[in-house]
Amino acid sequence: MKLNYRFRDPALAQLALTHRSIGRPNNERLEFLGDALLGAIIAELLYEVHPRSNEGELSRLRAQLVNGQALAVIARELELGDELKLGPGELKTGGFRRDSILADAFEALVAAVYLDDGFDACRAVVRGLFGERIAALRRSSKDAKTRLQEHLQAGGWPLPIYELTASHGEDHAKTFDVSCTIGEPFPLTAECRGGSRRAAEQDAAEIVLNQLLEQQRKP
Amino acid sequence: MKLNYRFRDPALAQLALTHRSIGRPNNERLEFLGDALLGAIIAELLYEVHPRSNEGELSRLRAQLVNGQALAVIARELELGDELKLGPGELKTGGFRRDSILADAFEALVAAVYLDDGFDACRAVVRGLFGERIAALRRSSKDAKTRLQEHLQAGGWPLPIYELTASHGEDHAKTFDVSCTIGEPFPLTAECRGGSRRAAEQDAAEIVLNQLLEQQRKP
Repeated sequence: MKLNYRFRDPALAQLALTHRSIGRPNNERLEFLGDALLGAIIAELLYEVHPRSNEGELSRLRAQLVNGQALAVIARELELGDELKLGPGELKTGGFRRDSILADAFEALVAAVYLDDGFDACRAVVRGLFGERIAALRRSSKDAKTRLQEHLQAGGWPLPIYELTASHGEDHAKTFDVSCTIGEPFPLTAECRGGSRRAAEQDAAEIVLNQLLEQQRKP
Repeated sequence: MKLNYRFRDPALAQLALTHRSIGRPNNERLEFLGDALLGAIIAELLYEVHPRSNEGELSRLRAQLVNGQALAVIARELELGDELKLGPGELKTGGFRRDSILADAFEALVAAVYLDDGFDACRAVVRGLFGERIAALRRSSKDAKTRLQEHLQAGGWPLPIYELTASHGEDHAKTFDVSCTIGEPFPLTAECRGGSRRAAEQDAAEIVLNQLLEQQRKP
């Protein structure tokens, strides 16, 4: 196993790799705990890396990172499949290659690290595995202004108008108030303050886009 | 506010209590993080307190503890409503009394403690608030044998049969293999090993009950 962590209590790692097809005890309880820990640690990472994203955006990003398929990819990188303990039925049908079994074992392993050496150790392991993935996701993700523009173009609607409505403060610590406005069929406007015009525009575009998507969802 | 925690950075607490009706910044991002942290800390508490419950049972218990209504009860105990920052519309319509706004502010406050002083501080606060609730839930919750029996009786089906199939080890460290069997219309059996007959019976009843519920859910 290529996990960058050395267990004080190897029995915990063994339990994390024991599928329920073996009987009891197995990794199901650890998986419950690991799933929750992973959710919290990734939430914090995204909170840090995306300081302007709202709750909906953060949830969407987390769902891209933490799902059965994505976790199975990590489990394969860690070569967990080779060390899974499976019952005879699962062994015969290649359970060590199945996404769900691999993802569950990875989550259980996260909990095993937590129980073995506490939150900081667990967080370090998870951050080591997800940091680069989150950075890559960030590089590939489009900013709010781009997403708003593409969404409006797809509907054949007029593009948004950004206006500087005010600026405050001295030159070295200036803030900017910017409005973002879209017209029919969904007239909306949002105003945001930011340390740069660009930052304020992105925030305003994000709000308008979210409100627009919400209105379009309504029957 | 009656939270048993003193913030180093009071601005974090203020942000946690700022509803989105105020504009930006507000507590939505903190709520995202707090929800995840709460999920993990409660998962660990339940993992400890219910050493024999399986994943499904642990999830069910957590859903009873962590939901909008339950969190609003805690928010009221902490008197968060008095300190919420709400926009004029929400103020007029009594937003400080609304379950969802109170629950969200409580989750945001959990994240604020985490950002203020780390996981251990956050965990201590959450454990202080939930420990007694979890103990009470445990006292009021029925054990697996009782739940299986009641479920079978409700369907008018025969009661389960428990059999000691083997025992191992010396008197001072004996383990017991027990089977739990139910008949038509859903014939099922499970065998478990435990440090006492009662423990093994409870485990076997839990498995049979879960399998039974799963079969009954199938179309």
